[in-house]
Amino acid sequence: MPPSDSNSPDIAAVKTYLLALQDTICRELTAEDGTGQFVTDEWKRPEGGGGRTRLLAEGNVFEKAGVAFSHVTGENLPPSATAHRPELAGKSWEALGVSLVIHPRNPYVPTSHANVRFFCAYEPGAQARGERPEAKGSTPSPFASSPSPAGPVWWFGGGFDLTPYYGFEEDVVQWHRTARDAVTPFGDSLYPRFKKWCDEYFFLKHRNEPRGVGGLFFDDFNELSFKNSFAFMRAVGDAYLHAYRPIVAKRKATPYGDRERQFQLYRRGRYVEFNLVWDRGTLFGLQSGGRTESILMSLPPLVRWDYNWQPEPGSPEARLYDVFLKPRDWLATANSQHPLPNTPRPF
Amino acid sequence: MPPSDSNSPDIAAVKTYLLALQDTICRELTAEDGTGQFVTDEWKRPEGGGGRTRLLAEGNVFEKAGVAFSHVTGENLPPSATAHRPELAGKSWEALGVSLVIHPRNPYVPTSHANVRFFCAYEPGAQARGERPEAKGSTPSPFASSPSPAGPVWWFGGGFDLTPYYGFEEDVVQWHRTARDAVTPFGDSLYPRFKKWCDEYFFLKHRNEPRGVGGLFFDDFNELSFKNSFAFMRAVGDAYLHAYRPIVAKRKATPYGDRERQFQLYRRGRYVEFNLVWDRGTLFGLQSGGRTESILMSLPPLVRWDYNWQPEPGSPEARLYDVFLKPRDWLATANSQHPLPNTPRPF
Repeated sequence: MPPSDSNSPDIAAVKTYLLALQDTICRELTAEDGTGQFVTDEWKRPEGGGGRTRLLAEGNVFEKAGVAFSHVTGENLPPSATAHRPELAGKSWEALGVSLVIHPRNPYVPTSHANVRFFCAYEPGAQARGERPEAKGSTPSPFASSPSPAGPVWWFGGGFDLTPYYGFEEDVVQWHRTARDAVTPFGDSLYPRFKKWCDEYFFLKHRNEPRGVGGLFFDDFNELSFKNSFAFMRAVGDAYLHAYRPIVAKRKATPYGDRERQFQLYRRGRYVEFNLVWDRGTLFGLQSGGRTESILMSLPPLVRWDYNWQPEPGSPEARLYDVFLKPRDWLATANSQHPLPNTPRPF
Repeated sequence: MPPSDSNSPDIAAVKTYLLALQDTICRELTAEDGTGQFVTDEWKRPEGGGGRTRLLAEGNVFEKAGVAFSHVTGENLPPSATAHRPELAGKSWEALGVSLVIHPRNPYVPTSHANVRFFCAYEPGAQARGERPEAKGSTPSPFASSPSPAGPVWWFGGGFDLTPYYGFEEDVVQWHRTARDAVTPFGDSLYPRFKKWCDEYFFLKHRNEPRGVGGLFFDDFNELSFKNSFAFMRAVGDAYLHAYRPIVAKRKATPYGDRERQFQLYRRGRYVEFNLVWDRGTLFGLQSGGRTESILMSLPPLVRWDYNWQPEPGSPEARLYDVFLKPRDWLATANSQHPLPNTPRPF
């Protein structure tokens, strides 16, 4: 039964969407790979909830592709999880999401990451009634029939970002255009805001270097009604494959040799550094007893570190730093100020 | 000129010792390797001080061996560096140390890490007089001639620990016996205390797994006079090669194949995880503008991550987990309660 109030969260609907999104992404990546298969790992979390982790390893196109769904619940939100919302500490909560990282084999295919998630914290009354939905199954939200007076606190988060080794400007423009076209129907300001947030978030301060060419990043998103915020998250989740798959298809057969492979392994080190040193989700997960293997599924299959390595000026490797690892408006010359005329607003 | 008061820190002497220790370690590792050579990188830190980083890459025995000396100074100690000593926040300070990580090529040779360091924070008066020693050169400590009334706050830290891939009990016993014999002349309690601290510090909480078989770890050490605390740090620094080189010599020619190599690469992932997620020195360095390439010199040259990999029960790989990655008293059956009779107390 859908909620009668369009601002009450419908967690069952979010869960249904996320599971279907995981299915779709795995199916399309399997098709793009040609030989690899995803293996599914279902797990439960002792403190509440669980997940469905899917991993394709040693495929033809994808050296490692992890696509994880999780739905975890807790009785007592730790203060560290709510540094900017101290009023939520101690509340019961649940979090659902799909998170993925794709590490292709061919150095001409960029690594990509996407995540869509939903977070909800409950008033004490809801917790005492024991009415929160189970981690598994499709129990509708308890708030559909008996919302607590103040209602739960909820928000969406997510985005996607691209990390090339050897960049192609047309690919990056295509990636950002897909991102912009997905979110602009919900407001003209969203692409510039969330593109900037992405550039700021995926940044290795200890290298003074962006992780890649960015995309979208948003968090604490509840500025629209639940219904429209959820639609916004779906637009981002659905856009990911449209943004990434054409790039994979176009680059996956590019010939390469050991030089490109070694540069790819070296640059993958930056991915490890970002995820383990700066990524808040990874750190919170590891430090708070999350499922380590699911959290670290994002790490590349093979990585190298070389002391003080620098690309030769003018080389294709230097071009990554000079052209692509500089935050810039990739759509500046590509009609970035207006949504495409044939994209209707969904509401 | 040496300090007249045995409790005044003699920073020039610490520096002289540390530079000589770096020389000795690099010379002996070069001899053990047979073909590799250390390359020296001298660097300056804009905020004060600098370092002398030495790296041997792609040697015969050592795939990557980094031995770094640094001497850094600052005008204003950040609160994050002194969480347990808030009274030091804002003081001027200097820190000297040698830190090393050795990644051998042969999976039967364990990785090792060692570090000895000295920290000193100054009363505001000393800072205002501008009498602190320069980062380079051998200027004697200003406290030799005119200590500030309260004197600076200083301590030593350090230790060494071993991370095998395929363990040998006799090697681990030899490692710990060398550690014990080095520190016991300074007090019978020191080996048990600092062995336990090492086990606790080099622990991957997100894996519920020790990094290796431990050794010694100490910090904030100033419980003896400066003279004797410095002698204690030297004893630890000098013991490292005695502990490690015989193991390298004994195991470096052990035949191995791709299975052992892949397990080594996989286990090296744990080293990366520890250093980037849990090691306070690494995190503080990266987050406070330290020299990234020197800090991350500790990372292995080549690393793999495999999702949810488990060793086959009863295999040599399982033996690492079952026998070696369990903190235990390695000297329990090796006369652990008493220093060897022929080890004289140095004071």
